[in-house]
Amino acid sequence: METQQPVRLRVFSLNCWGIRYLSRHCEQRFEMIADMLERERHDIVLLQEVWSEQDFLSLKRKLSVTHPYSHHFKSGVIGSGLAFFSKYTLQNTLLHQYSLNGYPYKVRHGDWFGGKAVGLAVLDVTGLRVHVYITHLHAEYCRSHDEYLAHRTAQAWELQQFVHHTSRGAALVVLGGDLNMHPQDLGTRLVQALTGLRDCYTEAQVFDGCEDGITLIADNPFTKREDLIPFEKGIRIDYIMFKGSESLSVQCESLSTTKGSVPGHPFPYSDHEALTAELVLFHSEGSNMPVSEGLAILTEAQMVVREQRFQTESMLGKSAHLLAVGVALLLLTLALWAVPWICPGALVSLLSVLCLTAFLSGVLLYLLFLTQLKALRETDQQMSLSSNHMQERFTRCRAALSASDEAVISHSPSPFKWEE
Amino acid sequence: METQQPVRLRVFSLNCWGIRYLSRHCEQRFEMIADMLERERHDIVLLQEVWSEQDFLSLKRKLSVTHPYSHHFKSGVIGSGLAFFSKYTLQNTLLHQYSLNGYPYKVRHGDWFGGKAVGLAVLDVTGLRVHVYITHLHAEYCRSHDEYLAHRTAQAWELQQFVHHTSRGAALVVLGGDLNMHPQDLGTRLVQALTGLRDCYTEAQVFDGCEDGITLIADNPFTKREDLIPFEKGIRIDYIMFKGSESLSVQCESLSTTKGSVPGHPFPYSDHEALTAELVLFHSEGSNMPVSEGLAILTEAQMVVREQRFQTESMLGKSAHLLAVGVALLLLTLALWAVPWICPGALVSLLSVLCLTAFLSGVLLYLLFLTQLKALRETDQQMSLSSNHMQERFTRCRAALSASDEAVISHSPSPFKWEE
Repeated sequence: METQQPVRLRVFSLNCWGIRYLSRHCEQRFEMIADMLERERHDIVLLQEVWSEQDFLSLKRKLSVTHPYSHHFKSGVIGSGLAFFSKYTLQNTLLHQYSLNGYPYKVRHGDWFGGKAVGLAVLDVTGLRVHVYITHLHAEYCRSHDEYLAHRTAQAWELQQFVHHTSRGAALVVLGGDLNMHPQDLGTRLVQALTGLRDCYTEAQVFDGCEDGITLIADNPFTKREDLIPFEKGIRIDYIMFKGSESLSVQCESLSTTKGSVPGHPFPYSDHEALTAELVLFHSEGSNMPVSEGLAILTEAQMVVREQRFQTESMLGKSAHLLAVGVALLLLTLALWAVPWICPGALVSLLSVLCLTAFLSGVLLYLLFLTQLKALRETDQQMSLSSNHMQERFTRCRAALSASDEAVISHSPSPFKWEE
Repeated sequence: METQQPVRLRVFSLNCWGIRYLSRHCEQRFEMIADMLERERHDIVLLQEVWSEQDFLSLKRKLSVTHPYSHHFKSGVIGSGLAFFSKYTLQNTLLHQYSLNGYPYKVRHGDWFGGKAVGLAVLDVTGLRVHVYITHLHAEYCRSHDEYLAHRTAQAWELQQFVHHTSRGAALVVLGGDLNMHPQDLGTRLVQALTGLRDCYTEAQVFDGCEDGITLIADNPFTKREDLIPFEKGIRIDYIMFKGSESLSVQCESLSTTKGSVPGHPFPYSDHEALTAELVLFHSEGSNMPVSEGLAILTEAQMVVREQRFQTESMLGKSAHLLAVGVALLLLTLALWAVPWICPGALVSLLSVLCLTAFLSGVLLYLLFLTQLKALRETDQQMSLSSNHMQERFTRCRAALSASDEAVISHSPSPFKWEE
């Protein structure tokens, strides 16, 4: 930082619900978003679900003067949907696609095709190195029976690993996006506890927005109330988080959300509410972020991942069976082709189609579950390693403390830190 | 570093050619490798092509005393093949799978199924933070007509991006593995120029090994001489690279390679030669690694990636055609099913199978090429961004220099550094 004056940074995040031809009023909403962004001139803009390249390019054109730096992160079949705009110089970007992201055969859910990822943008903000992370995790389609819980938890793990390993040397870290997790959900706690990132909603000195900071509100005309049950008013799943560094302390002065309707327009910007956080950056001499609860959360996350491992192993077995059925049918069909008078042609046709379908589905599902099993086992082992390392450090810290003063332990927060 | 005494670090790297049932003498060779590793007691061991979990676990058991820390990185259908062993405490690991890695329908080449990746292992070496990277890039099957050049170059780009973004705060960075690239190949130059990593072969004070440091030698009984043409003696594609930091300067005291045969055994460890580097670490007050050539190499790499973009776009068009043919055949088959007397049953069966095959292949190939196109475009744009940033810094540096002293520029190396 070249001056000792505090720097102010306004960060904006919105899930735009930008599925062309499927999301209602998509084109008009993107125009409204572009107008608002051009008028508001936030320093950093983090958009999710900008699925169409054309929509990104329109935004880019419109914001070329106010936000000369931008990036559209590309991954998967459709894209990651992540778009980034900034007033400040963008120095470098990096993309990490999550190794687990639902299933391709869940075509209606479609997350798999999106190639969910976390994008990093490295910015130069008046001489400060600022790392901005933007992400969108797998959606939760049914809270009472959430078949994607383990995938989302593994994504949260990868997200914190990515932030942990790439944020060294950053004066300020900002993470924004649609986590698809409530504040008390395992994945949210995992990310916060292990990275030390602080949630703008809980940290803001002033908050102006929907009750409890909810970002998916029942009053939104694009939202089906029944999808939110049992949360009558809505849920909070979009976040802006931040952390400073030894040389820079950060305060969140204010956080605001949109509140559904947009004055002068017949509908809101999106089915999600937008977040705007105002961060103030001061020079500092170091800040401590005790995360003693990290170990317990990590253990909980590892159990979720392990359970999914067992389920995926069973699915792998089932796809092997399907493959075997395909092979058996194939042999039968070949036999019927060889002696055509046994069986009418139409039945042979039907059998051919059946055996080919069973065989191909078997192969593809087998490959899919094998890949997912590898990723789950990798996550599990990374978690074990971190957990052991944390345990060891924790034990060492406690030993050092008890040697010096037993009484202090019970009355002071643990000095144990994951970030070292 | 707790003492001012130099620390010595012996690093070992070997592509083990460990494809069970396909690689010759696989089991016996893994036994030989385990015996040698247990005897030699290198500090850090980096193995590639340990495809089978069982082989990894045998190694782990055998090395449990000499190398208590280990990790087998898992990704893709078969795995990444990357295995890591260390004497020193392993604190954390991270895996990044490359977004481009060949094609699933090239079953004989098989790289796609391997989920090629770069693994990071964070070590505590007597109080020093050491980042060890292990990788294996896509193989080159035909040098004169290398259809994987762009994929390998994109992997080299992702490798340097990953090292660049995750190595901050490391006292020492070590990269080892099978890059499948010759020393003068674009990707090797890209990695070295942009990360500042130095090649042990060119840096070693003492070298003992095969002529020109080759690691795939014609004399190896597992190698087909004709695969090496026009390189009569062999090629160098395996590397150990390193770089120090501001607080630590590093020298490579020696590098050695195995030379084909192993005394007392009828065959060598692998079809690759093994590398052993001895690094010496001293406290220092900062070292400079000018990489003024980085920009030119980056531009060259970007051209390769762009050309592949155009090719992939054309392949995408072709798969759309295949899909259209599939749909047309489907309609025809349905029509024939509706009026069965027009056409014999066997022909309808054949048509059913054909249309289903064309349709499914069309869909899968379309998804594949669309995903690859996204990844290529992401790489291209990341490269543009870095290139602009480097260009800008370079211009600024030159302007500063010419303001102070024109004469110095022409006689001294450029002070421009990518790592900032």
